[in-house]
Amino acid sequence: MRVVCPGSYDPVTNGHVDVIRRAARLCDEVIVAVVHNPAKEGTFSIEERVELLEASIGDLGNVRIEELSAGLLVDFCRDVDAPAVIKGLRSGTDFAYELPMALMNKHLTTLETIFIPGDPRFEHVSSSLVKEVASHGGDVAGLVPDAVLGPLLHRLRLL
Amino acid sequence: MRVVCPGSYDPVTNGHVDVIRRAARLCDEVIVAVVHNPAKEGTFSIEERVELLEASIGDLGNVRIEELSAGLLVDFCRDVDAPAVIKGLRSGTDFAYELPMALMNKHLTTLETIFIPGDPRFEHVSSSLVKEVASHGGDVAGLVPDAVLGPLLHRLRLL
Amino acid sequence: MRVVCPGSYDPVTNGHVDVIRRAARLCDEVIVAVVHNPAKEGTFSIEERVELLEASIGDLGNVRIEELSAGLLVDFCRDVDAPAVIKGLRSGTDFAYELPMALMNKHLTTLETIFIPGDPRFEHVSSSLVKEVASHGGDVAGLVPDAVLGPLLHRLRLL
Amino acid sequence: MRVVCPGSYDPVTNGHVDVIRRAARLCDEVIVAVVHNPAKEGTFSIEERVELLEASIGDLGNVRIEELSAGLLVDFCRDVDAPAVIKGLRSGTDFAYELPMALMNKHLTTLETIFIPGDPRFEHVSSSLVKEVASHGGDVAGLVPDAVLGPLLHRLRLL
Amino acid sequence: MRVVCPGSYDPVTNGHVDVIRRAARLCDEVIVAVVHNPAKEGTFSIEERVELLEASIGDLGNVRIEELSAGLLVDFCRDVDAPAVIKGLRSGTDFAYELPMALMNKHLTTLETIFIPGDPRFEHVSSSLVKEVASHGGDVAGLVPDAVLGPLLHRLRLL
Amino acid sequence: MRVVCPGSYDPVTNGHVDVIRRAARLCDEVIVAVVHNPAKEGTFSIEERVELLEASIGDLGNVRIEELSAGLLVDFCRDVDAPAVIKGLRSGTDFAYELPMALMNKHLTTLETIFIPGDPRFEHVSSSLVKEVASHGGDVAGLVPDAVLGPLLHRLRLL
Repeated sequence: MRVVCPGSYDPVTNGHVDVIRRAARLCDEVIVAVVHNPAKEGTFSIEERVELLEASIGDLGNVRIEELSAGLLVDFCRDVDAPAVIKGLRSGTDFAYELPMALMNKHLTTLETIFIPGDPRFEHVSSSLVKEVASHGGDVAGLVPDAVLGPLLHRLRLL
Repeated sequence: MRVVCPGSYDPVTNGHVDVIRRAARLCDEVIVAVVHNPAKEGTFSIEERVELLEASIGDLGNVRIEELSAGLLVDFCRDVDAPAVIKGLRSGTDFAYELPMALMNKHLTTLETIFIPGDPRFEHVSSSLVKEVASHGGDVAGLVPDAVLGPLLHRLRLL
Repeated sequence: MRVVCPGSYDPVTNGHVDVIRRAARLCDEVIVAVVHNPAKEGTFSIEERVELLEASIGDLGNVRIEELSAGLLVDFCRDVDAPAVIKGLRSGTDFAYELPMALMNKHLTTLETIFIPGDPRFEHVSSSLVKEVASHGGDVAGLVPDAVLGPLLHRLRLL
Repeated sequence: MRVVCPGSYDPVTNGHVDVIRRAARLCDEVIVAVVHNPAKEGTFSIEERVELLEASIGDLGNVRIEELSAGLLVDFCRDVDAPAVIKGLRSGTDFAYELPMALMNKHLTTLETIFIPGDPRFEHVSSSLVKEVASHGGDVAGLVPDAVLGPLLHRLRLL
Repeated sequence: MRVVCPGSYDPVTNGHVDVIRRAARLCDEVIVAVVHNPAKEGTFSIEERVELLEASIGDLGNVRIEELSAGLLVDFCRDVDAPAVIKGLRSGTDFAYELPMALMNKHLTTLETIFIPGDPRFEHVSSSLVKEVASHGGDVAGLVPDAVLGPLLHRLRLL
Repeated sequence: MRVVCPGSYDPVTNGHVDVIRRAARLCDEVIVAVVHNPAKEGTFSIEERVELLEASIGDLGNVRIEELSAGLLVDFCRDVDAPAVIKGLRSGTDFAYELPMALMNKHLTTLETIFIPGDPRFEHVSSSLVKEVASHGGDVAGLVPDAVLGPLLHRLRLL
C-alpha cells in the first residue's frame, strides 16, 4: 500500500516524525505531502519545510517528500496513485475534527483515511505550540528533530 | 409548535435542507432565520442566501425564510413568538460547542433549543467544506441543492 | 406535535421532571413511556414507577403516563401516533451513546429523536446515582420529587 | 501489509462487512479474527460465526477467517506475522474506548492499530443493537448480510 | 499549596469568580495571573482587567492579582514559586483543549495543572459570550460581578 | 490542603502510583482510600490491596492508606477533615464519567474534586487491563510496582 501523509509541517516536529516512521514500517511507500495554505503565511516557506523534513527523515528509503501547493488532496493522491492518506490521532476531539474531511475525501474519489494513534509521549507536541513555547524562550529540544532546532530559533530571532 | 431554524446558510447545503424538511414535518411552522454576521463578509449576500433558500425549500408550505441581520436570536424568537430553536447535531463535539449558547438563550428568555441528529449521509457536508472543495475544482453536486450549484460555481469564478 | 418521552424512571428524578415539564410546554401532548427491561429487576415495579410519576407530574394536563413493557419503542410510538421521542441530553458523551439508537429508530420507521439539553442544575441527578447515595444514608431531598422521597427510603429500608 | 481485523462477530453485520471489504482493498491480506470471550455465552457459537462470515465475505480472495479462542491478540498477530490490526471507528467516544487497548498492544509487542472511519450509513449498526431490534420483531434486513438474516431469526426463535 | 489561576479575564465573569473563590478555600494562596495576549486587542486594557478583578475578589485575603504580560506561564509560576496552576473545566471537549498545554508545562518545568469542574450554573458564562450578548442589548446582570456590569456597558457604548 | 485519593486499587498500578506521588508533592497530606465495592468480589481482598499499596508508596511521608469499606465518600472525607478528593484524568470521556459524581459530592457536602491529567506514559494502564493482559500471559512488568508483580501472577495462578 502506498499512502500519503499530509500536513503543513511548519516545521516538522518529533510527533510528525513518529507518525511518518511508523507509517513507513507499515506501508510499502509513504509520500509526505507538504500542504501549502495560501491564506496564511507560514513560519517557514514550503521549500524550507521540505528541506527540514529531508534532514529529519531522509534516511527512510521508502519515504519521499512532495509539495502540495494547489488543488485538492484527493487529486494529489490520485496523481501519485495512493488509495489512502494516513494521519496521527491524539484524542476523540481530534477525530471529530478529522471525520468530515475524511468522509468528504471518500465521497469525492473513494480515497480512504487511516488513522494511527499518536504516541502519548508527543501528545503535547504540535508545530504551533512548539513555536509559541520557543518564541518565549522555552526549551524545545526533544520536541523537534535536531536538524530543526537551529533553523527554528534563528527564524524566531532567538539565535 | 413554531420553531426557528437559525444559520448563516452561506449557501444552504443538502444537510441544511434535510434538517429543515424534517423540522417542517415535526412542527407546525418553521422560520428559517438567515443570520448576518457583520464581522465577516460572506460568499453570498444575505439577500442572495434567502433567494437560494427559497429556491431550495420554497415548496414547503409551513416554512418561511427571514433575515436576522441585527440583534439577539432570543429577541428575534420572541418577536416571531417561537418558544424554541431547532438545530441539527452531528457529534458530541458539536453538542459541546452548541451547549453554552443554548443555555445562555434559556437563561435570557427561557428560549429552548431542540436538537435533531443530522443525517449521517450528510456528516461531511458544511457550507465551508463545500466551498473549499468547489473552489479547488471538486465536484459538489449532491452536496448542495441543484439551485445552489450554478450560483456557487459562478461566485467562485469557476463557471 | 405529540412526543413520547421514554425512560425506566426507577424512580423518577427531578431531572426527569424538568425534561417532562419543558417538553409539555413545547409540545401538544407528551406521553411518558415507562420502559420495562425484563433483563433486570428494578427497585420499583413498573406499576409503582407509574404511580410515582403520577404523583410527580399528574398536574400537567397534556401529559399521560403509559407502560412500555414489551416490544420496540418504534412500535409503541406508531401505536400512539407520535412522530418523535424527546430526550434530555447532558453531555457530548451522552449524545454518542444515544445516537445509534436514534438512527436505528429513524431507519426502522422514520421515528425522529429530538434532544433538549438537561438543566445543568440536575447534571448530577440520575436514578442510579440517587439510589446509591440514598442507600448509604446521603440526603437526596431536592433531587427527587417530594412524593418519591418517602417511598424511596422505605424501599431501601432506610425508613 | 497483512492486517488482522478482530471482533466477536456475533453475528457479522453489514458494518463489519464494509470495514473488511475496505481493508481488503487497502491491504495485501486481511485475517478476520473471531474472538471468543469465554466469560459470556454468545448468540452463535464461534464455529457458527466463522460460517456466517464465510457466507458473507467468502468471495474476497485476500481475506481469511480464523478463530482466536484463547490468548492475547498480540500473540495471535505475531503468530500470523501481522504488524497491525485494523478497526472501524464511529465516534470520538469510540476512539477513547479503543485507545488504551491500542496503546497496550503497542507496548507489549509494537503491534500497531490502524483505524478507518466507519461508513456513516452503518453508524447505528452493531451486533447487539441488531439482535435487540430483531428479538422484538423489528426488520433488520439490510443491516446484516442476507446469509445472516435467516440464521439470526431462527436463533432468536422468530422463524 | 500556592497556585496560579491564569486567564485573560477580559472581563472577569461570575464563572471566574466561582473558580477563584473555590481555589482560595482549597489552597494556601492563589495568584490570579492576567495574561496579556499581544496578538489581539482586548475589550479592556490589562490594567483595567486587574482593577475589575480587584473590585470583584479583593475581599479574599489569600488571593493576589498580577499581570503576566510577557514570557511563559511556566516562568511566571517559577518566579512566584507556585508548583501548580488551577483551572475550571466545563466539559470533556474543554479538557481535550487544555491537555496539550498542561502536558507541555509539565514537560518544561514539572509545573502541574489541576482542574476543578466549573459550577454548572455558570456553564454558559464566558467573557466572549457575555460580551456578545451585552453588545446586542441582552441583560448580563448575574453573569458578571456587579462591579463589572457598568464598565462593561460603558465600554460597549451601551450606557 | 489534605486530600483523599479514592480508588479500588485492585491492585495498585504504576498509573496510580504516579498520581499519588504527584498529589503528595502538591498537597500537605494525601489519604489513599481503598474503596470496597461489596457488589463485586475483587482479585485481592481489601487488606491485601492496602498491603500492596504500603509496599508501593510506603516511602512517602505525607501519605497514609485507609479502607473505605462502607458509607459515602463524602462522609469519609468529612471524618478525616479533607475538603477535596484528587483524581487522575485520562481523557474527555473520563471527565464526562467523573463529572456527575463530582457534582453530587459537591452538592452533598461541598466536597471538591480536583483532577490532574494522567501521565500519558500510563494512558493504557488500568487495573482491569493489566489483569486481563497478565491472565493471558502478557508481560506486565513496568505497568505495576515491582512489589505487585509477584502477588498478581500468583493470584492469577501463573506462578
